[in-house]
Amino acid sequence: MTEIGIIAVGGYNEMGRNMTAVRIDEDIIILDMGLRLDRVQIHEDIEIDKMHSLELIEMGAIPDDTIMKQINGTVRAIACTHGHLDHIGAISKLAHRYSAPIISTPYTSALIGHQIDSERKFGVKNKIISLDAGGIYQVTEDISIEFIRMQHSIIDCVFIAIHTPVGAVLYGCDFKLDRMPTLGEPPDFARLRSLGKEGVVALITESTNSGISGKTPSEQVAHDMLRDVLLGTEEPDVGMIVTTFASHIARMNSIIQFAGEMDRIPILLGRSMDRYVSTAADMGYIELPPNAEIYGSRKEIDNAFKKIMKEGKEKYLPIVTGHQGEPGAILTRVANGETPYKIESGDRVIFSANIIPSPMTQANRYAVETKLKMQGARLYTDVHVSGHAYREDHWELLRMVNPEHVIPAHGHINMHSSYIEMAEDAGYVMGDTVHLLRNGEELYIE
Amino acid sequence: MTEIGIIAVGGYNEMGRNMTAVRIDEDIIILDMGLRLDRVQIHEDIEIDKMHSLELIEMGAIPDDTIMKQINGTVRAIACTHGHLDHIGAISKLAHRYSAPIISTPYTSALIGHQIDSERKFGVKNKIISLDAGGIYQVTEDISIEFIRMQHSIIDCVFIAIHTPVGAVLYGCDFKLDRMPTLGEPPDFARLRSLGKEGVVALITESTNSGISGKTPSEQVAHDMLRDVLLGTEEPDVGMIVTTFASHIARMNSIIQFAGEMDRIPILLGRSMDRYVSTAADMGYIELPPNAEIYGSRKEIDNAFKKIMKEGKEKYLPIVTGHQGEPGAILTRVANGETPYKIESGDRVIFSANIIPSPMTQANRYAVETKLKMQGARLYTDVHVSGHAYREDHWELLRMVNPEHVIPAHGHINMHSSYIEMAEDAGYVMGDTVHLLRNGEELYIE
Amino acid sequence: MTEIGIIAVGGYNEMGRNMTAVRIDEDIIILDMGLRLDRVQIHEDIEIDKMHSLELIEMGAIPDDTIMKQINGTVRAIACTHGHLDHIGAISKLAHRYSAPIISTPYTSALIGHQIDSERKFGVKNKIISLDAGGIYQVTEDISIEFIRMQHSIIDCVFIAIHTPVGAVLYGCDFKLDRMPTLGEPPDFARLRSLGKEGVVALITESTNSGISGKTPSEQVAHDMLRDVLLGTEEPDVGMIVTTFASHIARMNSIIQFAGEMDRIPILLGRSMDRYVSTAADMGYIELPPNAEIYGSRKEIDNAFKKIMKEGKEKYLPIVTGHQGEPGAILTRVANGETPYKIESGDRVIFSANIIPSPMTQANRYAVETKLKMQGARLYTDVHVSGHAYREDHWELLRMVNPEHVIPAHGHINMHSSYIEMAEDAGYVMGDTVHLLRNGEELYIE
Amino acid sequence: MTEIGIIAVGGYNEMGRNMTAVRIDEDIIILDMGLRLDRVQIHEDIEIDKMHSLELIEMGAIPDDTIMKQINGTVRAIACTHGHLDHIGAISKLAHRYSAPIISTPYTSALIGHQIDSERKFGVKNKIISLDAGGIYQVTEDISIEFIRMQHSIIDCVFIAIHTPVGAVLYGCDFKLDRMPTLGEPPDFARLRSLGKEGVVALITESTNSGISGKTPSEQVAHDMLRDVLLGTEEPDVGMIVTTFASHIARMNSIIQFAGEMDRIPILLGRSMDRYVSTAADMGYIELPPNAEIYGSRKEIDNAFKKIMKEGKEKYLPIVTGHQGEPGAILTRVANGETPYKIESGDRVIFSANIIPSPMTQANRYAVETKLKMQGARLYTDVHVSGHAYREDHWELLRMVNPEHVIPAHGHINMHSSYIEMAEDAGYVMGDTVHLLRNGEELYIE
Repeated sequence: MTEIGIIAVGGYNEMGRNMTAVRIDEDIIILDMGLRLDRVQIHEDIEIDKMHSLELIEMGAIPDDTIMKQINGTVRAIACTHGHLDHIGAISKLAHRYSAPIISTPYTSALIGHQIDSERKFGVKNKIISLDAGGIYQVTEDISIEFIRMQHSIIDCVFIAIHTPVGAVLYGCDFKLDRMPTLGEPPDFARLRSLGKEGVVALITESTNSGISGKTPSEQVAHDMLRDVLLGTEEPDVGMIVTTFASHIARMNSIIQFAGEMDRIPILLGRSMDRYVSTAADMGYIELPPNAEIYGSRKEIDNAFKKIMKEGKEKYLPIVTGHQGEPGAILTRVANGETPYKIESGDRVIFSANIIPSPMTQANRYAVETKLKMQGARLYTDVHVSGHAYREDHWELLRMVNPEHVIPAHGHINMHSSYIEMAEDAGYVMGDTVHLLRNGEELYIE
Repeated sequence: MTEIGIIAVGGYNEMGRNMTAVRIDEDIIILDMGLRLDRVQIHEDIEIDKMHSLELIEMGAIPDDTIMKQINGTVRAIACTHGHLDHIGAISKLAHRYSAPIISTPYTSALIGHQIDSERKFGVKNKIISLDAGGIYQVTEDISIEFIRMQHSIIDCVFIAIHTPVGAVLYGCDFKLDRMPTLGEPPDFARLRSLGKEGVVALITESTNSGISGKTPSEQVAHDMLRDVLLGTEEPDVGMIVTTFASHIARMNSIIQFAGEMDRIPILLGRSMDRYVSTAADMGYIELPPNAEIYGSRKEIDNAFKKIMKEGKEKYLPIVTGHQGEPGAILTRVANGETPYKIESGDRVIFSANIIPSPMTQANRYAVETKLKMQGARLYTDVHVSGHAYREDHWELLRMVNPEHVIPAHGHINMHSSYIEMAEDAGYVMGDTVHLLRNGEELYIE
Repeated sequence: MTEIGIIAVGGYNEMGRNMTAVRIDEDIIILDMGLRLDRVQIHEDIEIDKMHSLELIEMGAIPDDTIMKQINGTVRAIACTHGHLDHIGAISKLAHRYSAPIISTPYTSALIGHQIDSERKFGVKNKIISLDAGGIYQVTEDISIEFIRMQHSIIDCVFIAIHTPVGAVLYGCDFKLDRMPTLGEPPDFARLRSLGKEGVVALITESTNSGISGKTPSEQVAHDMLRDVLLGTEEPDVGMIVTTFASHIARMNSIIQFAGEMDRIPILLGRSMDRYVSTAADMGYIELPPNAEIYGSRKEIDNAFKKIMKEGKEKYLPIVTGHQGEPGAILTRVANGETPYKIESGDRVIFSANIIPSPMTQANRYAVETKLKMQGARLYTDVHVSGHAYREDHWELLRMVNPEHVIPAHGHINMHSSYIEMAEDAGYVMGDTVHLLRNGEELYIE
Repeated sequence: MTEIGIIAVGGYNEMGRNMTAVRIDEDIIILDMGLRLDRVQIHEDIEIDKMHSLELIEMGAIPDDTIMKQINGTVRAIACTHGHLDHIGAISKLAHRYSAPIISTPYTSALIGHQIDSERKFGVKNKIISLDAGGIYQVTEDISIEFIRMQHSIIDCVFIAIHTPVGAVLYGCDFKLDRMPTLGEPPDFARLRSLGKEGVVALITESTNSGISGKTPSEQVAHDMLRDVLLGTEEPDVGMIVTTFASHIARMNSIIQFAGEMDRIPILLGRSMDRYVSTAADMGYIELPPNAEIYGSRKEIDNAFKKIMKEGKEKYLPIVTGHQGEPGAILTRVANGETPYKIESGDRVIFSANIIPSPMTQANRYAVETKLKMQGARLYTDVHVSGHAYREDHWELLRMVNPEHVIPAHGHINMHSSYIEMAEDAGYVMGDTVHLLRNGEELYIE
């Protein structure tokens, strides 16, 4: 009889450094290898790209995969659900220890490639295999990996089904049941339902927003709110700057579209804009209008700001990094008066992002907002919807997939607790069919 | 030289019992006469309709208009902006003291009529004059009242411009600059702009949400979120109940429309449903589908629930009162098991309403939600957007209308403080051009 | 080999209806039988004393002890740690089903007696055995119960050690490591340390405040703050009313003492004042001064208030029920103007109590506070310290007792989560040596 | 007839940069000149001591005293109530513009001297006059300044009464009606009462905590809680570090005393420890035990830590800077592992301080706490009581002093709003006898 082990490597005690291993007898699949930014931010002057994994493990910034030595089995594959740093950010530090390919969707693969390229301590040589949503990768004779289309706040996100002789283990970390996405297709509900019928041994799923009542509003809602903020005004000619997650390609696409409707030139500024958006455009996920501009280097950016100041703010819509007030980001430099762009009374800064709930980012945002307001800027904050499922989305997924076991992952114990209470409502029993794991623990399912 | 006095009668120290008087030399216009429900709710077993005004004044439930005796002038008109209780709820207690007509839009007039009809202590005989948005009523030779189209969470809401020999006094209490309303037209921006050019002596405006960053999301956003909650589901056949503000006719209209899309019969239950929605339908503001049903009496309601239970919950969409957990409301009775409608595990209750931030309503909602959850209901809360302008809407209004003086009204001193800080950003000076009034105070403008 | 079972009957998913059963092979000791008031308060017009246990179980108000049928063993004793309702409030509904004595400290026994006397549905005939802190009760040849002196917000509180052939099971629910108690002796640290050396198989302990940093301030702090509020004033002759927990005998003793220092007559008003304080005085726990008065009936209370109004408020210090704004309590009646005591501007009402964090009590308190303030009262709220251990007290207990297993009880899953994180810091391992139980679950320890 | 002008220079729109000017006809007294640290902290790498005042004004860090040019009169004296930075921190930047002496109590004078000495941009030559509490300084023939003894979280704090021909203007900024201070005498209630009888034209007073119910707990409460944390433990031999405000001499004195009771050597570490505590000891405000050590330089501090590590942590009680997680402070360096002191599991860090409610300090504290916890430290936070009067202390002061006019100062508009509501309860009328001023405004009193 096949034994399944679910190993909680990271992200079960905290948000961020996600890593789960699924053992099927002696074959192991690793799912995600993420970075916890908060644990980096509490230190000053750190250069992650030069640091050793053991140091980062001690800081709590990446998963402590040294526990893998005690697991009896061989890693056959590393699979990632999407390209956010809390899912791929530790690959450049950890993946080279495993003689196994990295499997991910094309956009995620591209981002993993960037990650590995900018690493300066380790050389990661694992083969990167791109698999489209809907595709299947045969890991061993008995085990295959299937990618199922999902929505989240980044494109090309999937659920990963590991097919084993005793049924599927479904890994659904970071998802949103968005039926009205503005980019890409809705989640593959049909496949999830059929999977539920075929038999799911275990569902491992994020618990982030399982404590929030109701369902997550669709990205369409953010799209509409943002459009209203930009276009629905009696003062259409003031300076406007938008900042959002560079990796949120759907949101970016909307903003670029609105720039067109506003008859302004969209101008993307910041290194990560270049990385995420150019990559998406090059790969064909979005189409940039001919007049769009993207600049990544400080010099190009300052020249672009000079041009804007000269030709008129009302002709441009700068889309910049810095939504969390990150030191060195473009909006932060604007707020500090370090760029040629000068804020005047009545100019607008639109944050199409929430504030990540860490005191470090709250302080950064506070500093940036205060400086912008002192210069006369009008702020539009939280023009945004979440990319994480709310409680009733979890309820629907759970009933659709109907797993024998369910394991909340990707969050603090309080988030898991909310998930467990929801699962209990659906008939699951704590310690029996719904499990609370801690980093370093292995759950055995027979 | 004409002297203008702005008399803060009620609603300047608190939310709810709004009443302002504007004196033009010796002619007085009263604006709104509202009820503060919170001050009623802290008492048990109160029947407002039988109570004397002095008692209600002492309780802090209605404006203390006894101060009007010290104002040198004659009340020429009572004008109301819209039909919410905090604007018309004290009319049946106070209006008869003034020999002056009541002027309001047609829907507001109808609601005022209902209010007066259900009063059991006083006989209010004032003439009620209906004036459409855009209309003008000549009060005296020198003074006229103009209604300007506005959006809010009830239909037929207006701003009131009092035209005087020295310019207009604009009363804008309860508004939302909604450019995508789902019912009615957007605010009359053109008229507001032209008014600003003609000259506004004073703007009296609500400060409720002036502390919230950005702009209020459009009602279209609530419409879309609600539609997604009702239609975007993998479990379309469970029991569903929706509750919202009976007076929010636009929202109601959306829900009724969605019932059609869901192939369910909309069935409105509750006394105030009957009052607000039937009135709106009779007056032609909305059109009910032929299969819609409305029941106001307890017996009819219980019969309707029996029918639903018999024919199948999946055939109906009950739209009920009780979004604040009010004792005696339909949802509260359902939660108490006092109706034939039985909640089963997985049934849904959708609150298309916020929780009014008073401990009394928070307790009521908690009790109802707890009971519903214990019976297995899945709750969707806060599927809603506000009907009150946020900070940047205030900013735009202020700059559009460009008044000499501005007075925040309709709220607690902390709300006014937020408004004042925004007005200072726009160049107004506290105590000079932006004023903080307290109940009972008169501001003189020369 | 002896098998130990820890059965989580109630209070593991919520605050209030505490009940744990410890099975030593086939002998069972029940620990506490409590009532969850919050689940009673969400219903109107409930008379608990007339209700059947099954109804109260369904409401979630008392522990669901129907699960005990599936436990293989015989209940040998019911032991209670202290006299709060969340520990003894379900005895009158459940104890009669078990043919076993109830064992508790003398004061707790007296309160259990009152509880049983006022029950109108069931007749509880179990023998009540009083055992002093430090005493031992032999349950069977192999099993004995030991009471260990503890501090909490009620007198005569103990930890219960169940001595078994394989070591002790220590039940420590509701405690405070108070080294400066104002009544009674500090916890018996010496015995706890020696118990730790003898060997503790399992510690079952409350998790209520385990999420709060540091250690709980001593009752001496509340004593000093309250004394300062009452005596440290420039306006010593205004009317003053104090309200606190009737069961908090130490606090009550302080207030009575301060009345003497203020040269005022302490006058205790309210039915539960009579029950808790008179009992404590009769049993010799406190000594009332000769001039102290206690009245429980409405008529006596109103007469007392009449006397106070006639002779002068400055001569008396009324100590009354109603700190949570309970309907019908004395302070609530004063606030409603239903007693002869009239509040004047500048009179003081001192709440020597926190607000219990339930929306129901928050609403009650809000109503009472609002009414008192409208009459001119000056409020002193939260002149209080908690009776529950904070995180570092838990840390010290855990290291002192050094149990093989530890089970957080008495609280919501989030409170247990905080406890688990603390226990992990101390070297415990989730699922292995620290356990998260849910109502209805049995943990087996071999 | 004498005209009084109250000029709100700074600290009326915000916490921090306090400065008020009182004009008696053409003679002006300046009260306090403070620094707003929060506005410094949002910038990186700022060296205040080298900056020009105009730059600091533009940043909002110091009062904008350029408005003084428009006031018709001559500054005759600058008087400070106490030595906190928000009261004296701008003296080195602004005082040299006024040809007037600086008058303050001896300890405050010493701190002002330090401030001026460390200034590197301006040379402040104003005469510094020390005046004891109870003393009077004759400013002109008609005007004198009286210092009245007060309590606050720093020693030698006073109220300032400016005696004018038409009565006194009382400036009471930053106070606590502490009747059980642990250092110094209680406030001079007798003098305040007699002043109230003589006639107070205006009271200018801090509003910081006027929104908090009840009265501020005495410093005695912090003393007792802290003693209990340090001495009331079952683990007396673990490493312990205390951090508190270096300027809080009374608290420092308590900690040093407890070190003696614990049989540990108190060892004060940090530059500001040296400045504030050594000064207080040299001036005779406190007496340090012979074994106490104070080190201010990095080298001395590291040597001290080495000694502690070598001889045993249980022999010392380090009292260090860094309670707000300030970068570079001693606790921060310990947390970063930059000192020889190594935290072991179970060691304790006691924060005898609140967290200043700014996102910047919240982030700093979070970073320090996280690092300490990761090393195994047990944290005791908020072992502290406020130094600012709560609502009922304000109520008592107001009724004791009985001013004709009252002006809340020293805080954000929301704090003033709370004060105004309290003053209205006491019979004051907004805009008539209680005034809401904004920075830059002058109130005329005739």
